Amino acid sequence: MPFLCFINRKSTKKKVKKVKEIKVGIIGFGTVGAGVAENLLNNYSVISTRTSISVKLHKIADLDITSDRGIAIPDNVLTTDANEVINECDIVVELVGGTTIAKKFILQALNNKKHVVTANKALLALHGKELFEAAKANGVDIFFEASVAGGIPIIKALREGLISNKINSIYGIMNGTCNYILTRMENEGVDFDTVLKDAQKLGYAEAEPSLDIDGFDTAHKTAILSALAYGEWFGLDHMFVDGIRNISLFDMGCAAELGYRIKLLAIIKNKDGKVEMRVHPTLVHADGMIGNISDVFNGVMVDGDTVGNTLFYGRGAGRKATASAVVADIVDVAKNIAANSINRTPAFVEGKLFDQIISMDEIDSCYYLRMMVTDRPGVMAQVSQIFAEGKINIDSLIQHGEGEGNGVPLIILTGMTKEKAMMDAIAKLEALDCSLEKVRMLRIENI
Amino acid sequence: MPFLCFINRKSTKKKVKKVKEIKVGIIGFGTVGAGVAENLLNNYSVISTRTSISVKLHKIADLDITSDRGIAIPDNVLTTDANEVINECDIVVELVGGTTIAKKFILQALNNKKHVVTANKALLALHGKELFEAAKANGVDIFFEASVAGGIPIIKALREGLISNKINSIYGIMNGTCNYILTRMENEGVDFDTVLKDAQKLGYAEAEPSLDIDGFDTAHKTAILSALAYGEWFGLDHMFVDGIRNISLFDMGCAAELGYRIKLLAIIKNKDGKVEMRVHPTLVHADGMIGNISDVFNGVMVDGDTVGNTLFYGRGAGRKATASAVVADIVDVAKNIAANSINRTPAFVEGKLFDQIISMDEIDSCYYLRMMVTDRPGVMAQVSQIFAEGKINIDSLIQHGEGEGNGVPLIILTGMTKEKAMMDAIAKLEALDCSLEKVRMLRIENI
Repeated sequence: MPFLCFINRKSTKKKVKKVKEIKVGIIGFGTVGAGVAENLLNNYSVISTRTSISVKLHKIADLDITSDRGIAIPDNVLTTDANEVINECDIVVELVGGTTIAKKFILQALNNKKHVVTANKALLALHGKELFEAAKANGVDIFFEASVAGGIPIIKALREGLISNKINSIYGIMNGTCNYILTRMENEGVDFDTVLKDAQKLGYAEAEPSLDIDGFDTAHKTAILSALAYGEWFGLDHMFVDGIRNISLFDMGCAAELGYRIKLLAIIKNKDGKVEMRVHPTLVHADGMIGNISDVFNGVMVDGDTVGNTLFYGRGAGRKATASAVVADIVDVAKNIAANSINRTPAFVEGKLFDQIISMDEIDSCYYLRMMVTDRPGVMAQVSQIFAEGKINIDSLIQHGEGEGNGVPLIILTGMTKEKAMMDAIAKLEALDCSLEKVRMLRIENI
Repeated sequence: MPFLCFINRKSTKKKVKKVKEIKVGIIGFGTVGAGVAENLLNNYSVISTRTSISVKLHKIADLDITSDRGIAIPDNVLTTDANEVINECDIVVELVGGTTIAKKFILQALNNKKHVVTANKALLALHGKELFEAAKANGVDIFFEASVAGGIPIIKALREGLISNKINSIYGIMNGTCNYILTRMENEGVDFDTVLKDAQKLGYAEAEPSLDIDGFDTAHKTAILSALAYGEWFGLDHMFVDGIRNISLFDMGCAAELGYRIKLLAIIKNKDGKVEMRVHPTLVHADGMIGNISDVFNGVMVDGDTVGNTLFYGRGAGRKATASAVVADIVDVAKNIAANSINRTPAFVEGKLFDQIISMDEIDSCYYLRMMVTDRPGVMAQVSQIFAEGKINIDSLIQHGEGEGNGVPLIILTGMTKEKAMMDAIAKLEALDCSLEKVRMLRIENI
């Protein structure tokens, strides 16, 4: 281990600052890689003016270095050999994606004492702790702002801007594809499958859309934010994750009638010293700040014990927005190199502020239920009886003339109750002879 | 100058980390000072876990050290002598306010090689450059996150999270008092004077409210944000500033009818390489993110060339929210002291990215005009003729049955036009014999 000695020498008044050059290499010349290259090249002088550091794009590695990405790359920058990036650059930007080869490249870079910037949420959610330990052991930085909510500087906000806060809760709309689909369903009255197909055609959804629409991408981001908030890398094992595949226009309409919108929401809460982490479609107030986040936009609401409620909003994906976050990280590392302050903001601090996760049974929530019941006297009494037995408050009850299938839809909003009590009540509701279908349940957050 | 030497010794697996102690002193034990003390004391262990630094409240100076602020301050911390803070602490937090004694304390601290954290927007707007130069000359940090938009980490976002962006525009609702008054006027239909009196009673407005309601406080914050965005400390001299004193319920109602809300908006734009800076009541879309910021909340929308539109929202004032930002700065400085990376993020970089301000005559805007006209044939033709002569597009025109005074109110929304052309047209409109009152003009931003 080196013996480090810093000498803080005061120079004379007029300090001539030497602009240090930092070499940046990108592995992965896809959408985001091209955006990062473009941003580094186009805004080189803005960045060097603001930092007095020359942040130079030195190498880009990809198997395909001939396709046109719409930017003029200087000579000798493109290579098919990732080793050139790792060997020649100070900062290695991993934009390959996935959890296998990307992990190999990152570890190789870290073990070669190279600083790493990545946008790879899936990799971090699964192997974050291992990567951070490798960075620490090698005395280098690893930054990952772009892994959560694209261009929004939420990680910097959480671990620097709000550092003096105990985090009460975090609510996030963090998947642009889902938010785009839900917004179009709501605005155009078109069903999920149709909008998904169109989104795929327009490039807003992948051909294999499961990662986004089944909530896994949001779950990866939730794992990262909860780790930063609570100092424990929980991963995905104990996280409840549900996507938006089963959201119907009918439920969306009922929600709207009651003043709500349906959003795929990440929920992280500190509940009596235990952590609650879940991702699922959620009813939120249509006129609230979170309810107003539409289209491909993302937003993260952080409630800190000192700052109160804050919201960070912007584009959660896309070539340029994601590049903005990646380059901010590159500059942060470059500033650390220039100031000799590596690890000034550690990638992850194992604080174990809270180290237990609440099971879904134990969470408290309000609920939206949609039953299909036969239209005959006595049904309401039977249904109400089950809620009374479960000690669950009914806040609103709407009986609709017509629904999606047979019978009559009955929409119930409950007060705050334990999930276990709600699930028990739902089982009893489904067992009623007047109940024609499985009960559709969605959770509500009154933010 | 001290000779600092840190020894970074790797121990066996279980690393016992020595927590460095940084002494913090506060000058000014008012509302925010008490909040900062409370945050430092209550969340001491959270901060030290996250940073491995002991950020210790060492001294608080105020002329009044006997009044109860609702927090238990440890022995020997309170003093009436500001010199004790400056002499004994590593970081001096100036929370005196005002532009005279506060400036003296800050310069005294800087010249004693002490790092400074301040929330004093008025002082920075007027003398920022001088203070930053003093900090630079003395090799110390000066941080000021709490000076703009309270608890929202907007300064960190602007100069770190969005560092790779050329800033196209910034829109800010940055005065909680004004936003509270406007929100209550809109929600309750109560006029400005009545709401102001009530806000004063409730402590949301000062006894002498001019700084807030006439837009000066917002102007100070605008000066700071524009300096950070464009690398030139323009100050207030060339900024157009108008407040909310003359906003009537009638105009608010007409705006609502047209889908708008009236907000006191700070507007900063990069327009063809020149800077546009102004503060005035503005019509914004009621269903947009900015339009939905209500009550005492603040929000700053930053449009960067790479990231696109982002919004940062939260509490813009108050004991706790402001303390969150002040303590974040304290921790940032503490991290710099610990890592020996002072001036890693300079207070202000004179980049002169743009160094010219556009005069109000030259700005382009859409406008809301309210005329009072006599109710007789030919009026519309006369009015329309003036717009045609000025080459100003009329986007909407509403004639109301009844207004606030004599005659009939005529509400006109224009397309984009130069302010000069608009002012010329207004002069002509007022000269018409059918015009009974001065024309009420408000600007519109379609964000």
